[in-house]
Amino acid sequence: MELYAEQGFEQTTVAEIAERAGLTERTFFRHFTDKREVLFYGTEMMQHLLVEAVASAPASATAMDVVGTAFEAAGAMLQENPERVRVRDAIVSANPELRERELIKLAALGAAVAGALRERGIPEPAASLAAETGVAVFKVAFARWISEPGQPDLPAILRESMGKLKDVVTDRLVAAPQR
Amino acid sequence: MELYAEQGFEQTTVAEIAERAGLTERTFFRHFTDKREVLFYGTEMMQHLLVEAVASAPASATAMDVVGTAFEAAGAMLQENPERVRVRDAIVSANPELRERELIKLAALGAAVAGALRERGIPEPAASLAAETGVAVFKVAFARWISEPGQPDLPAILRESMGKLKDVVTDRLVAAPQR
Repeated sequence: MELYAEQGFEQTTVAEIAERAGLTERTFFRHFTDKREVLFYGTEMMQHLLVEAVASAPASATAMDVVGTAFEAAGAMLQENPERVRVRDAIVSANPELRERELIKLAALGAAVAGALRERGIPEPAASLAAETGVAVFKVAFARWISEPGQPDLPAILRESMGKLKDVVTDRLVAAPQR
Repeated sequence: MELYAEQGFEQTTVAEIAERAGLTERTFFRHFTDKREVLFYGTEMMQHLLVEAVASAPASATAMDVVGTAFEAAGAMLQENPERVRVRDAIVSANPELRERELIKLAALGAAVAGALRERGIPEPAASLAAETGVAVFKVAFARWISEPGQPDLPAILRESMGKLKDVVTDRLVAAPQR
């Protein structure tokens, strides 16, 4: 990923990445299907973490609490290395092909969380609605976090955004505040 | 689109599409940047319709009501020609490249709705949360509608899904119904 940041994603070859990582090209391709996948390794990890968090939440938790807690755990993972996340986000944002793959990974992540909720006995469409809403809140919170370099804590922003979502959905927030 | 359904998306050339539509290739490219765009013309129309509906909603409407009404209007548009929507969905679903573009268009649509909400004076992050949640509900409702051929009414499924979302978000639905 350093190489992508230094010389651009398009200009970086798999041979260069493998060399920097001390791997042969063959070993590289055993781990990643192509050079784009390097950037989405974290997204896969995030998906595993989300599914795990949903499965291990207390039995008494509501669907939305389960989803909220799971995404906060994912946020905490990203928070561990904010600089890395920011560099990666800049690389992905600058390349339409990578932005596309990012959207695909996010969609897959929503489907995985919905599946984990169904495993807990949450019926459809509630499982998909809760999961997709979780992804929606994550997108908004992540965009806020990444655009404000001083923002300290992604899990806190996620929690706040989830609370805000409840206000928005329950209409405690009217449309035109100027009235 | 008939051609895509008949002979597959990959096998269809712009020349064939233009001929079927009674256009020259040059005219085709004045309207669409490439052959994929033909399939996303409806998505662009849907985006215009959503932005229009958000802008023209009554001043007293809450953010979530505005979003709900706008997506119901979009659902009504799709409902006008369900067979066309189903054929298009089958073509897009069968092709990874088209699925990617679909996700990009949906993301753009969420951003456009958020922008229209801000125009109404809804502050961030409420505007983005309401818009992204609207897209999430639309995705779930659309998937239900498309997977059940007997489903009569997309706007009704959208309304029902929006109601269900409120239940999910406000925790009226607990996680494990077996208890």
